[in-house]
Amino acid sequence: MTKQDSVDLNIKDLSFINDINSLAVIGPSRKRDYYFLRTHAENYKGKIYAVHPKIKEISGFANENIYPSLMDIPEKVDYVYITVSSSQILNVIDECVEKGVKLASVFTAGFSDLGTEEGRKLEVEMIRRAKNSLRILGPNGMGMTYPKKGIGWRARFPSEPGNIAFIGQSGGISNLVVYKGSPMGIKFSKVFSYGNGNDVDFVDLLYFLSNDEETDVILCYLEGIKAGRGEALIKVLQQNKKPIVVLKAGKFKGAAIAANTHTAAITGEYRVWKAIFDKYSVIEADSVEQLLYAAKLIDAYGIFELKNIAVLSISGGYGVVLVDQIENLGMEVPPFSPEIQNQLNQKLIAVGTSAKNPLDIAAQFRNLNLVQHLIELVLSDKKIDGLIMDLPSFYLNTGYQPGKTPILEKKITEIMSLGHSYRKPIIPIIQRSNSPEHRDRVMKILNEKKIPVFNQPLEFLSLLPKISKCAKNKN
Amino acid sequence: MTKQDSVDLNIKDLSFINDINSLAVIGPSRKRDYYFLRTHAENYKGKIYAVHPKIKEISGFANENIYPSLMDIPEKVDYVYITVSSSQILNVIDECVEKGVKLASVFTAGFSDLGTEEGRKLEVEMIRRAKNSLRILGPNGMGMTYPKKGIGWRARFPSEPGNIAFIGQSGGISNLVVYKGSPMGIKFSKVFSYGNGNDVDFVDLLYFLSNDEETDVILCYLEGIKAGRGEALIKVLQQNKKPIVVLKAGKFKGAAIAANTHTAAITGEYRVWKAIFDKYSVIEADSVEQLLYAAKLIDAYGIFELKNIAVLSISGGYGVVLVDQIENLGMEVPPFSPEIQNQLNQKLIAVGTSAKNPLDIAAQFRNLNLVQHLIELVLSDKKIDGLIMDLPSFYLNTGYQPGKTPILEKKITEIMSLGHSYRKPIIPIIQRSNSPEHRDRVMKILNEKKIPVFNQPLEFLSLLPKISKCAKNKN
Repeated sequence: MTKQDSVDLNIKDLSFINDINSLAVIGPSRKRDYYFLRTHAENYKGKIYAVHPKIKEISGFANENIYPSLMDIPEKVDYVYITVSSSQILNVIDECVEKGVKLASVFTAGFSDLGTEEGRKLEVEMIRRAKNSLRILGPNGMGMTYPKKGIGWRARFPSEPGNIAFIGQSGGISNLVVYKGSPMGIKFSKVFSYGNGNDVDFVDLLYFLSNDEETDVILCYLEGIKAGRGEALIKVLQQNKKPIVVLKAGKFKGAAIAANTHTAAITGEYRVWKAIFDKYSVIEADSVEQLLYAAKLIDAYGIFELKNIAVLSISGGYGVVLVDQIENLGMEVPPFSPEIQNQLNQKLIAVGTSAKNPLDIAAQFRNLNLVQHLIELVLSDKKIDGLIMDLPSFYLNTGYQPGKTPILEKKITEIMSLGHSYRKPIIPIIQRSNSPEHRDRVMKILNEKKIPVFNQPLEFLSLLPKISKCAKNKN
Repeated sequence: MTKQDSVDLNIKDLSFINDINSLAVIGPSRKRDYYFLRTHAENYKGKIYAVHPKIKEISGFANENIYPSLMDIPEKVDYVYITVSSSQILNVIDECVEKGVKLASVFTAGFSDLGTEEGRKLEVEMIRRAKNSLRILGPNGMGMTYPKKGIGWRARFPSEPGNIAFIGQSGGISNLVVYKGSPMGIKFSKVFSYGNGNDVDFVDLLYFLSNDEETDVILCYLEGIKAGRGEALIKVLQQNKKPIVVLKAGKFKGAAIAANTHTAAITGEYRVWKAIFDKYSVIEADSVEQLLYAAKLIDAYGIFELKNIAVLSISGGYGVVLVDQIENLGMEVPPFSPEIQNQLNQKLIAVGTSAKNPLDIAAQFRNLNLVQHLIELVLSDKKIDGLIMDLPSFYLNTGYQPGKTPILEKKITEIMSLGHSYRKPIIPIIQRSNSPEHRDRVMKILNEKKIPVFNQPLEFLSLLPKISKCAKNKN
C-alpha cells in the first residue's frame, strides 16, 4: 500500500509508537490508590510522571515526578494515560496537543458509549481538539501494553517482550488474553484495547501491526467496525503477510444484540465477515482460549499444512480415541510408508506395543532413546506431515513408578524439538494427572522452546484444519 | 429383567463384588519390585496376602502374609489379582476354584490378544477351568479399582469412595480416567478394566453397575462388544435407569483398524451404535476428558434440560463470546422476563454494567451481596433454565487488586450453591490466569460442593445439548 493510499483511506500512521520514551499518567485516582499510575510504573523502563492538580505525594512514587499539570513537566512526554473525568477531558487533550504528546490512551468512559447525543458530541469534540497531531486510543478503552518498554495497564502484566500482538475491542477480553497468555508462554509485542475507537481504530492498528517489525502473529477480538471502514480493512488485509487469528463476536442474534450493548458495535452480517476471512486467510477462533492456542501453534511452526498425521501414545485406547477425533475433523492417520514401517517393526518389538500408526509404545516410553529413534523415523516418512503425541505426566514423577527414576526432562525437550529440525509439527499433550507440579514444570520448559504443548486434544485439534486451509490458500 | 432373563442371556451375576473381604496378589514380580502387590496394599482395608512359590520376604510387607500357594492361606480369599505368566495360569485358576475364590483379575497377557490360535485356545481353556464358579476379569486387563474397600491396581489411586463408576475396555484409558478424574473431584464407586473380556464382559459389568446401589452415574470406554452379545446389551439398556456416558472408539476407519490392533475388538458400524445410544438415552462423549466433564455435570445436577441460559460475566466481551458459543450449539440466551428485568435494572446501575442477558457486572463483582441478589433474581425467572458464569480468578488474589481485600471464597461457594437450591444448574468458569494457586484452591472447594467448575467453555458447552436431549427423552 502506498503512502497516498493510506492517506486516501484515512489509515493513521502509528509507527511512532516504537519510539515512545516517556510516559505520564494524568489524573491518577487517590480513591483507587492510584491504580493506573502504579500499574504503569510497575515495569516501566523510562521516565514516568504523575499529573494531578492537587496531590503532591504518592506513597512509593518519587515526589519530584508528580506535577500539577502536563505543561509543568520540563521534559517532553510521548505517551499519556488519561483517567480524568469526562468533564475535564477537553482541557487535558488541549494540553496534550500543546505539549506535543504523540499518543493518549483515554480510559475515561462517558462518551458515545453512553448512547446519548451529548456523549457522542463530546467524543467528536475531543477528537477535533486532538487536531490529528495527537492520536487517541479510546475513549472507554484500557489503552496499550508494550512489554518491551515495560508499559502495561494492569498489575502483574508481563515485562518480557515477545512477537505476538493483540488488538481487542473489549478491555475485559484484552485483560484475559494477557493474563491467560502469559502462563501459556505467549509473549506479547503489543496489546491494544481501543474501546470506542473513534480516532485510532481496528483498521489502523491492524495496519500498524502488519508492518511492525516486532510482531510476527496478530490476534484480534473484534465485534465490528465502523461504517465506511470496509474498504480500508480490505486494503490492509490485502497487503498483510502475517498470520492473523480473529475471534469474531456477535455472530449470532443474541450475541450481536449484546455486542451492541457492550461497545455500541455494529457487528454486521456474519456471512460477510466469513467471506472476508476466507478470502484473506484470516484464521477464525471460537473462544478466547482458542485464540491463544492458535498463537502457540503458529508461533511454534508458522502456518503449516497438516493432513497426514502420525499418532504416538502409551495407551492403545488413547491412541484410538485420538484417531477418531482427528478423522472426525477430516484429517488422516495413514499407514506409514513400507520402508519406514519395516524399520519401525524392527525397533518396536515389546509385547503390548504396536508399531503401526497410531503407534502404541506402552511402557517402552521409559526408553527415551527408543522414543527418539521412533519419532525420527516417523518424521522422516514423506507421507507424514506431523505428529500428535501423548506425553504421560506420571512418568515424570517417581511417585507413580516406585523404584524407578523419572524420565529426563532435558531428554524429553530434546526429542520434542525434533519437530523444529524436521520442520514438521510435533504437538504433545500432557495428560492432566495427579502430579500437576511436574506437568506444569515440563509444560513451562516446552513452551519456552516453542513446543506447543496442550492439556487435552480439544484445545487444539479443531484449529489444525483451519491453519492447514490457510497454508493452502497462501501457496 | 427377571432372573431367568439374565440366565437366558448369559448375563453374569456380579453382585457378590460388594461383599469382597479378602484379597491375594498371585505372582508379584520381584523384578518390578512387587508393583501390583504394593499398589493393592497401598489403601487396602482388609487382609491382603502375597502368593509366591519362592519368595519369603518382601520389604514393607508382613512375612506372615506371604504364602507359597493359594491353598496354604488359612482363611478364605474372595478376590485374587493374578500376574503369573500365561504358562502358569491354568494351575492358578484350578487353585482359585478349589479355594472358592469369587473373582480373579487376570493382568497376564498372551491369550487371544496375541492373535494366535494357541492364545485363543489357552483363553478358552482358562475360562472352562473357572467352571462358572470363579468369575474372571481379563485376561490382559488392569482389573478392578474399588476405593470404598481400598482396592486399586495402581500407585496413588484414590481411596475415597464415590458414586461414579467406569468400565474401560482399555487399561491405559482406565488409568487416565482415574488419574485425571480424581483431581477434578470425581469420586469413584468402582472401576473395571476388563481387557479381552472373555468371561466378565462389558454387558455383565453394565448390568451389575446399573443395579449397584453404590453407583449413580456410569461412564464407559467402549471399542466394541463380542458377536452375539447385542441382545443382552439391549436388554441391559432397557432396564437401566441411571445416566450412562460412553466414549465409543473406532468410529472412523483408521480408528477402527487401530482398535482391532489394540484389543482385537470388532468396533461395528458406528451408525448402529449411534442408533442404540439415541434410543436408550446414552450420552456420547468425544474424548476422555469430556467423559469426565459429563460426569461432573451429571453428578452435580442430574440429567437436566438447559435451553434458555442466563450468562453473567465481568467482561462484556467475554459475555458476548459466550453467547456466540451457546447460540452456535442451538441453545438460547433470551431476554429476561419483564418483571425480573425491572428488578435487575434497579439493582445493577453502575456505569459500564449491563443488566440485560448476558449480564455484564464489571467490577461490581466485588460486591458479592449484589452478585447473590442478581443470581437469585435470574434463577427465579421462569424463562431461565440455568446460569453460565465467568468467575474471575484475579479477584481471588490481592496481588491483582492492590489495596483491596480478596473476595471471600466462602461467600462465593454459598452463591454458587444457589444452583442446588433453585434446582437450576449454575456452571462457573474460572479463567486460567496468573494466580493458579488461588484458582486451584477455589476449584477444589467448588468441586467438593458438587458445583461443576470448568477452566474454559469448550470443556463443557457441547455436552449441554447432549444432556438436555437425554432429559427430554426420559420425560
